[in-house]
Amino acid sequence: MKNCIVAQSGGPTAAINASLLGVIKAVLSSDQFDHIYGAINGIEGILNHNIMDLGSVFQQPYQQSLLKQTPSSYLGSCRFKLPDFHQSDDLYQAIFSFLKEKEIACFFYIGGNDSMDTVDKLSQYASENHINVQVIGIPKTIDNDLPGTDHTPGFGSAAKYIASTVKEIGCDSSVYDLKSVTIVEIMGRNAGWLTASSALARNESFFAPHLIYLPEVPFNINVFLKQVEQKVSLYSNIVVCVSEGIRDENQSYICESASSGLTDTFGHKCLSGTNKVLETLVRQHLGYKARGIELNVCQRCASHIASLTDLEEAENIGAQAVKFAAQGLTGKMLSFRRISEDPYQVQIEAIDIDLAANLEKTVPIEWITPDHCDVTPELIQYCKPLIQGEPVIFMKDGLAIHMIR
Amino acid sequence: MKNCIVAQSGGPTAAINASLLGVIKAVLSSDQFDHIYGAINGIEGILNHNIMDLGSVFQQPYQQSLLKQTPSSYLGSCRFKLPDFHQSDDLYQAIFSFLKEKEIACFFYIGGNDSMDTVDKLSQYASENHINVQVIGIPKTIDNDLPGTDHTPGFGSAAKYIASTVKEIGCDSSVYDLKSVTIVEIMGRNAGWLTASSALARNESFFAPHLIYLPEVPFNINVFLKQVEQKVSLYSNIVVCVSEGIRDENQSYICESASSGLTDTFGHKCLSGTNKVLETLVRQHLGYKARGIELNVCQRCASHIASLTDLEEAENIGAQAVKFAAQGLTGKMLSFRRISEDPYQVQIEAIDIDLAANLEKTVPIEWITPDHCDVTPELIQYCKPLIQGEPVIFMKDGLAIHMIR
Repeated sequence: MKNCIVAQSGGPTAAINASLLGVIKAVLSSDQFDHIYGAINGIEGILNHNIMDLGSVFQQPYQQSLLKQTPSSYLGSCRFKLPDFHQSDDLYQAIFSFLKEKEIACFFYIGGNDSMDTVDKLSQYASENHINVQVIGIPKTIDNDLPGTDHTPGFGSAAKYIASTVKEIGCDSSVYDLKSVTIVEIMGRNAGWLTASSALARNESFFAPHLIYLPEVPFNINVFLKQVEQKVSLYSNIVVCVSEGIRDENQSYICESASSGLTDTFGHKCLSGTNKVLETLVRQHLGYKARGIELNVCQRCASHIASLTDLEEAENIGAQAVKFAAQGLTGKMLSFRRISEDPYQVQIEAIDIDLAANLEKTVPIEWITPDHCDVTPELIQYCKPLIQGEPVIFMKDGLAIHMIR
Repeated sequence: MKNCIVAQSGGPTAAINASLLGVIKAVLSSDQFDHIYGAINGIEGILNHNIMDLGSVFQQPYQQSLLKQTPSSYLGSCRFKLPDFHQSDDLYQAIFSFLKEKEIACFFYIGGNDSMDTVDKLSQYASENHINVQVIGIPKTIDNDLPGTDHTPGFGSAAKYIASTVKEIGCDSSVYDLKSVTIVEIMGRNAGWLTASSALARNESFFAPHLIYLPEVPFNINVFLKQVEQKVSLYSNIVVCVSEGIRDENQSYICESASSGLTDTFGHKCLSGTNKVLETLVRQHLGYKARGIELNVCQRCASHIASLTDLEEAENIGAQAVKFAAQGLTGKMLSFRRISEDPYQVQIEAIDIDLAANLEKTVPIEWITPDHCDVTPELIQYCKPLIQGEPVIFMKDGLAIHMIR
């Protein structure tokens, strides 16, 4: 008997279940493994012996399609950091003893930066202790901040949701004959990829978002107000996209910034997001109608408008992990290499896990305009292929059908 | 020469351009009118002589399809209330003199409560002054709060967006093994229709939203916290949908309520929405992970997930307005009467405008459960047919194509 196990970790994406499906289908269509288990709530499922047999649930194409169109992590998730095993290896012993009991030869972990840390540690421990278990990382994160890969599965769908929503908000915000500023706050504490992708909303006759602010460069409130004023004088109704993590010259988050004027005279801070801070600044200093909008978790779970390219790639990278497993791979993360721009084409490779674990890839400064309020055409060209195509979605009573565990 | 003019007013919806298209197509396919004009920014376009020839722009099926899938008001909008003409009729003289100059025999106004007030006043003025111009109201509002009609065009698409999004948020919020409360704030100051429609997200194996609070009944913070506690004990991760306009027993908005604890010791109020107030209460009093989400303008502009039923009905009611115009109708608003539940079927009628103008239809109390934290099956049955079906959407580069004026 030779089995494998798969788990999901970190924040969900619209494509993380497509990667799970890729693993399941590749296992079911080969004779590499006898059983494919799923661990519930990431590595915690292995520690708690909480697993399920995935092969029996996902035999049929219909169930497989439903899994692919389901947002969130089907197997549940966790945020669990393993300790350094040189200091304490109790958990490691527990994990590998359970894997041995279940005759598991390979562990596929679908996750982001933190999960790759787990892959790194487990594979090292196995290697140092001559345990014959492979550990392979499958990337996912809407933030696109994993190094070592052209982009991450999940980013394309989030970018498509953002561009589509900003385009609709741009239409909506321009119906009245007045001066208005709509501020859209987009996820990203340190990496501005998601906010940058809002630029995809533009075309030759549509100019929203008019301003884009990323966390990679310092944010100056006075410069911001001048840039807003200038754009409003040109377009009347403007849309501004900002990363939640924009910071001033002193690295203080704008949403916590004293200079924002949103603390009262006694220094009490209000519980407001970046969008609300900027909304208030625009209203107070420029007198325009202003509205802050936070896109929130819809960025990672709006599977009804997922990118077909993203879903297909996510499934492929999951399937490829199983093929690499047959070659004895361990301690690696799968990655995309873009081998052609036109037509867009990627190749799936495997990189050393320590090139991705705990590291963060931010937007290159040269892809941000010198005035720090927009992105360059290179960035748009990079993002555009990732949002192409729409999946066919199975519906019931007007809503997408989801696969609930 | 006999012409007509059409305008849009109030907040946009995902279906308001479908009604515009209905008017345009019905005019183009009959010989009732020589020209169809559009007034830019509602009645202000007539006052400012700012109009366009719609017949020439929308001759082709492709442009027509694009109009139907474009969110916001293609012609722009306004919030303009005409004075009582018995006190001052300058504006009325200006309006009808311009209509006469352009040989306009009929004015179609697509809008909500306030716009129906305009229809009411203009038609009365025309009648009292023997002016041969018909004025016909075509309803729209996501809020579904217009009386005299089974429902309003625009509501179905907003309800579909809300139910779809709450379902996705429900999936997303349940991935971690902990106790959590996600609070979704939905539009509606006085009428809870939109918030109530979130109940459509549920099915036999999916229970979000677990609690629903509408503005039609008083909201009690202590009762709320007990109801949250009870649902969390059953489901661990719960989703709560609240109308922005929920109020306490004294008719104070919860988002401004002193008892919410979000004013500091000096009485300074924080600029937070209802969702943030409840998020903080849950965190402080119950200790659960809590997250507030405001769906914001996406509720009225997410045309990529519009309801096909809503779009078809909106187009039909626009077309029917032109047919009624041929019969000499004036001072009326078109409305839907539901003539069958199974199969769902509506009939378009015309009602006296004073049955709708300036009035508000709220959710019947008997459709709210006695514990004030949910809706009854009758409400779900009422909403369900309105979100059925998905339109085919023309896309370019991964995004819907919109028709920009």
